[in-house]
Amino acid sequence: MLITFEGLDYSGKSTQIKLLADRLRRERHEVLVLREPGGTPVGESIRAILLDTKSSGMTPVGEFLLFSASRAQLVEQVIKPELAAGKVVICDRFYDSSTAYQGFGRGIPLDAIRTVNALATDRLTPDLTFFIDIPLDEVERRIRERKEGKDRIESSGRAFYERVRAGYLHLASEEKRFRVLEGMKSIEEIQADVWKTVEALLKEHVRT
Amino acid sequence: MLITFEGLDYSGKSTQIKLLADRLRRERHEVLVLREPGGTPVGESIRAILLDTKSSGMTPVGEFLLFSASRAQLVEQVIKPELAAGKVVICDRFYDSSTAYQGFGRGIPLDAIRTVNALATDRLTPDLTFFIDIPLDEVERRIRERKEGKDRIESSGRAFYERVRAGYLHLASEEKRFRVLEGMKSIEEIQADVWKTVEALLKEHVRT
Repeated sequence: MLITFEGLDYSGKSTQIKLLADRLRRERHEVLVLREPGGTPVGESIRAILLDTKSSGMTPVGEFLLFSASRAQLVEQVIKPELAAGKVVICDRFYDSSTAYQGFGRGIPLDAIRTVNALATDRLTPDLTFFIDIPLDEVERRIRERKEGKDRIESSGRAFYERVRAGYLHLASEEKRFRVLEGMKSIEEIQADVWKTVEALLKEHVRT
Repeated sequence: MLITFEGLDYSGKSTQIKLLADRLRRERHEVLVLREPGGTPVGESIRAILLDTKSSGMTPVGEFLLFSASRAQLVEQVIKPELAAGKVVICDRFYDSSTAYQGFGRGIPLDAIRTVNALATDRLTPDLTFFIDIPLDEVERRIRERKEGKDRIESSGRAFYERVRAGYLHLASEEKRFRVLEGMKSIEEIQADVWKTVEALLKEHVRT
């Protein structure tokens, strides 16, 4: 079973992923948590390029294709074999991030994004995708709270992140596998929402 | 004006590119010669990944997307501005290499290849593309002659290179911008064929 978490940075994805993985392990599931980009030798080299601030003048299309190349390696070398071995694979971001950030956010045509996503994943679709939704004001509040050096929202522009958020909500309205989580709730409340959905899906899996 | 050279390794592309660039410069054209992958800071990092033999388990799709990411950077940061400045840009390989090697050779669906090519190049098409055609036996003869350490044909299989060659011939039959050069001719004869075509195109450019 493949479960993905999506959302803006600071929306609380990694906290919820950790809590879900712990819970699944307590229920005796084998769990693998992955993070994009990276997770394979080639993917880690790609991650280094994407995170290198000296990679000046990264174009939106170049960035999108690098993320997709890393994803292709991860799907083929890790996700597919681990799913085949019966594990629950949880991904911190997957191809919906490209649709939201590079498509809705940067304006790369969505049909091209979808074609590349299908190619990079060999048409593998998550069984369940959580989008943790928080307003931009809350993202900014959390950044200030954590006293992060660089204001990422400022560097790409607030309008960009508003498009990304709206893009996620659009995807969630289109695809059944999405669950929108209210990110302003407490960590425990969100965890309860996550677990209720995952538990139902696990039961369904056992039945089928 | 954008001129690209395509062909199997050892077909004599770099020799012909050098001769063409020299000739164009003698005729007082500003010429820029580029090579894929690479040519930009991000592209050179991608080149290093692609050439690193430790990048074991490079998947065909991952490889294709890495080439395409490097190409996107090169088009945006180098080729477009140089063409706008009136230069003759000569590329040693361009997106036809992806169609031939990753599409016809590795079997990635051609419609996906074409979508990614259009995205990576922002639909920039060469004015002229030379495909230097040599039979596989001749490639093998040249490898033996140059005493290259690793037999690249052996590692990917001769059938792969036959598909790549046939793919190029297919592209050449479909698109007007292609000229197939008989790679078994002498360097001087091929150069004469190249120059005749380029000269005619340059005159056409001046007229229009």
